[in-house]
Amino acid sequence: MMDIDYNSPAYTALRDQARPDWQAYTGHAFVTQLGQGILDKHAFIHYLIQDYVFLKHFARAWGLALVKAQTMGEMKFTARTLDTLVNHEMQLHIGICAEHGIGESVLFNTQEELENLAYTRYVLDSGLQGDFLDMLAALAPCVLGYGEIGIRLKREGSPGNPYQDWIDIYCGKEYQNFCGQVGELIEQATVRRLGEDYQNNPRWAALSQRFNTATRLEVGFWDMGLRGASD
Amino acid sequence: MMDIDYNSPAYTALRDQARPDWQAYTGHAFVTQLGQGILDKHAFIHYLIQDYVFLKHFARAWGLALVKAQTMGEMKFTARTLDTLVNHEMQLHIGICAEHGIGESVLFNTQEELENLAYTRYVLDSGLQGDFLDMLAALAPCVLGYGEIGIRLKREGSPGNPYQDWIDIYCGKEYQNFCGQVGELIEQATVRRLGEDYQNNPRWAALSQRFNTATRLEVGFWDMGLRGASD
Amino acid sequence: MMDIDYNSPAYTALRDQARPDWQAYTGHAFVTQLGQGILDKHAFIHYLIQDYVFLKHFARAWGLALVKAQTMGEMKFTARTLDTLVNHEMQLHIGICAEHGIGESVLFNTQEELENLAYTRYVLDSGLQGDFLDMLAALAPCVLGYGEIGIRLKREGSPGNPYQDWIDIYCGKEYQNFCGQVGELIEQATVRRLGEDYQNNPRWAALSQRFNTATRLEVGFWDMGLRGASD
Amino acid sequence: MMDIDYNSPAYTALRDQARPDWQAYTGHAFVTQLGQGILDKHAFIHYLIQDYVFLKHFARAWGLALVKAQTMGEMKFTARTLDTLVNHEMQLHIGICAEHGIGESVLFNTQEELENLAYTRYVLDSGLQGDFLDMLAALAPCVLGYGEIGIRLKREGSPGNPYQDWIDIYCGKEYQNFCGQVGELIEQATVRRLGEDYQNNPRWAALSQRFNTATRLEVGFWDMGLRGASD
Repeated sequence: MMDIDYNSPAYTALRDQARPDWQAYTGHAFVTQLGQGILDKHAFIHYLIQDYVFLKHFARAWGLALVKAQTMGEMKFTARTLDTLVNHEMQLHIGICAEHGIGESVLFNTQEELENLAYTRYVLDSGLQGDFLDMLAALAPCVLGYGEIGIRLKREGSPGNPYQDWIDIYCGKEYQNFCGQVGELIEQATVRRLGEDYQNNPRWAALSQRFNTATRLEVGFWDMGLRGASD
Repeated sequence: MMDIDYNSPAYTALRDQARPDWQAYTGHAFVTQLGQGILDKHAFIHYLIQDYVFLKHFARAWGLALVKAQTMGEMKFTARTLDTLVNHEMQLHIGICAEHGIGESVLFNTQEELENLAYTRYVLDSGLQGDFLDMLAALAPCVLGYGEIGIRLKREGSPGNPYQDWIDIYCGKEYQNFCGQVGELIEQATVRRLGEDYQNNPRWAALSQRFNTATRLEVGFWDMGLRGASD
Repeated sequence: MMDIDYNSPAYTALRDQARPDWQAYTGHAFVTQLGQGILDKHAFIHYLIQDYVFLKHFARAWGLALVKAQTMGEMKFTARTLDTLVNHEMQLHIGICAEHGIGESVLFNTQEELENLAYTRYVLDSGLQGDFLDMLAALAPCVLGYGEIGIRLKREGSPGNPYQDWIDIYCGKEYQNFCGQVGELIEQATVRRLGEDYQNNPRWAALSQRFNTATRLEVGFWDMGLRGASD
Repeated sequence: MMDIDYNSPAYTALRDQARPDWQAYTGHAFVTQLGQGILDKHAFIHYLIQDYVFLKHFARAWGLALVKAQTMGEMKFTARTLDTLVNHEMQLHIGICAEHGIGESVLFNTQEELENLAYTRYVLDSGLQGDFLDMLAALAPCVLGYGEIGIRLKREGSPGNPYQDWIDIYCGKEYQNFCGQVGELIEQATVRRLGEDYQNNPRWAALSQRFNTATRLEVGFWDMGLRGASD
C-alpha cells in the first residue's frame, strides 16, 4: 500500500472508507499491465480515445464546480483548472493520440462507451443535485487516484515500457502539484461546510457514498479499456 | 408580533435572525393598506399581474427543488406542490385577475419588473449554486411570510374590505396547511443535513444570509406594487 | 413492425432514423421473453428493483424539464406528469414489488447498476447542456418505447403469462393516453423551436443523436435485467 | 451613433432590434458623465464596489456557458475567458478599487444591490432554462456594450479625466480583441444552431427578448451607480 494524502485528511478519510473499491480501481489489471508494459496495444488505444471524450465532459463538470463555488479561492482554483484542462491537457492528449496513430477526426467521431458516459454524467449530476462539496467528492477519485497510480507505477518501474510517457505525466511534478492543490481545496471546502469534526457531520455518509460511486465508475472505465484488447 | 412557527424550530430560528428585514416585509405599507382596504386599486392590479409572472418562475424553482431532492419524502412533497402551483393556483390567479378586469393576454404579455425578476432568479440560482437546503432557505420567506400575513390581516379584519378574497386565500385552511407542511419539510431537511444542533453548523450563517436576501427581495416586491398606484 | 405515431410526426421521424437501435430496444430478448411469459423470474425481479431507482432519477429529469419549460402548456404538462410519476406510479411500483416479495427496505438500499445510472444521468445532463427540446429527445425513447412494447406484447398475447400485470399497465388506456400527450408535447415543442420544416433545421442532427443515445441506453437497461437471471 | 460589429452580423442584428433600450444603456447619464470626467466620485466608487460582486457572478455565468458548450471551440474559448476573468480581471479590479481607497474587506462584505443581483441571476437562469445560445444572448450586452462605450468615450476624450484609467481598459487593445472574439463566438454559435438565415428561425424572437432584457438590466446597473452619488 502506498497511500498519498495530498494535504488533505478529509480526502484520506474518504479514500480509506472506500476500500475495497479503491483497491479495485488503483490496482486494476489494466493499471498493472500498463505498469509492466504488457498491456495490449489495442486496449490502450481504445482507452486513450475514450479518455479524450471523458476529458470533454470532465471539463464540463469542473465548469459546474465553478458555478457552485462559494469563495474566491474556490473560484480561482476551478477557473485555472478549467483553462489547464481544456487549453493544455486536452491538446496534449490529441498529441499523444497522434503519436499512437489516432487522428483528430477519429477522436471527434468516437461513440462514447457506456462506462464513460455513466461516469462523467454522474459527476455532473452530483453538482446538479448537491453543492460544491458533493461535486468535489465525485471529482476526487479520478484526479487523486491517477496521482497515486502514477507514483506507484513509477516506483515499480519497468525498463523500456512502451507506456512510459503516460506514466511520466501522472507521476510528474506538474500533475502531482495539481493533486496537492486539489487536496487542499477538498480540505478547505470540507472544513468550511462541515466543520473540523467533518466525519461526524450528518452529510459525511452521503459524501462518502458519492466518492464510492465515482470510484466504482473508475473500475468500470478500466474494464472498458480492457474490452478494447485484440482478441 | 404574531409569529407562527409552522412546525419548524429551524424556520423560526431563520425568521428570528432576519429581523428587522422580516418586519419590513410582513409589515410593509402595501400589506397594511391592503389589510385596511385602502390600497390603491391600480397598485393592487399592478401587483396581481406581476405576481402571475412571479408564480411561473417560482414554480420553476420548485421544479429545481425536485431535481435536488434527496429523499422520497422530499420528492413527493415537491411534486405535489408543483402540480398544485401550476395546475391549480396559477389557474386560480387567472380567475382573480379576470374578476379585476385583467384578461389572460395582458398577463401573458406583461413585461417583468426588475424586483420581480431579481427575486425569482435569485431563488433559482440558490438551487444552482447550493443544495436542497439552500433552495428551501430561499423559498421559505415567500411561502411562510404570506401565511403569517394572511393570519394577521384576518385578525385585524376590516369590514367590506375590497381585498377580502385575497386575504381569505392566505389565511384559509388550505394555504395554512400547506405552510405547516413546508415548515415540516424545512425542519426535516435541516436536521438531515445539519444535525439537531443546526444553529452551530458551519453552514448556518450562509443559510441565514440566503433567507435574509429573499426576505429583502419580498420588500422590493411590495415596493414595486406600490409603484403601480395611480398618481 | 407495429409503429405507433402518438400524434407526433416529429417523434416518428426521430424514431425512424434511430433504427436499428430502436429495433434492438423494443425487440430485445428481455422483452420477447417477458411477452411469452418465459422470462427468468430473477431477471424480472432484478429489473423491477432497478426500475424503482430509475424512476426516482427519471422523475428528477422531468423536474428539470419543468425548470426549462418555456410555455404555460409545457409547464402544466410537466407538473402533472411529475405528480403522477412520483405520487402514483412510484407507489404503484412499490406495490408490484411487494407482490413479488420485494420489501421497501430492499428498494431503498439497492445499489444502482451501471446501466441504470448511465441512462438517467445522461437524460439529466441533456437538460443541463441543452434546452427543453434536448430534454424531450432524451426522455422520449423510454416513455413512448414502453407504450409501443405494451401494445405489441398485448397483441402477441400469451395465456397465463405471469407478467401480464406489467403488460397491462403499459398497454392500458391510462398509459397510452399519457403517451399520446407526450407525443403532442414533442410535436408542439419541436415546431415552436425548429419550425414546421424541423428535419431541415440545423439542430435536427444533434437531437437525433440524443434520441439514439437514449435508445441505446434502453438496450443496456434490458441487458442489465437479463444479467439478473439465475444461473 | 458609432456602432461596432465585432465580426458578427448576428450580434449586430440583435443590437439593432434592441433600440431604444440599447441607446438608454450605452448613452446613459452615468456613462456620459464618466466620459466628461464630471461623474460624482461616490457614484463611481459605489459602482466599482458593486461591479466587483457583479464580476463574481458573471464569471459563474461563463462557467455555466462552459457546461453548455457543444463544440471544442466553444469550450476552449469559455475556459480561457473564465481564467482571464477570475484570475486576472478580478485581481485588476481589486487593484483599481485599492487606488480609490477601497480595501478588499469592503469588497468582500458589500451587500449586493437589487439591480446587480437581478442582472447576474437573470444571465445564469438564461443558461439554466435555455441552451448555449440563450446564454450568449444574455452575456453579450455587457461584454460588447462596454467595448462600444470604451471606444466612444475615448473618441470624445476629456483631458485630465479622473476616470481615464477605466476608459483605457475598455477601449484598449486587449479588451477590444476579446470583444472581437466574443463576436465570432456569437456568430458561429448562432449559425450552428439556427442556420445562415437565423433571423427567420423560430427562436430568433426569444433570443432577441433575452438580449433586450439583459440590455435593460444594464440600464438598471447604471441607475444604481448614480444612486451612490453624494447628496
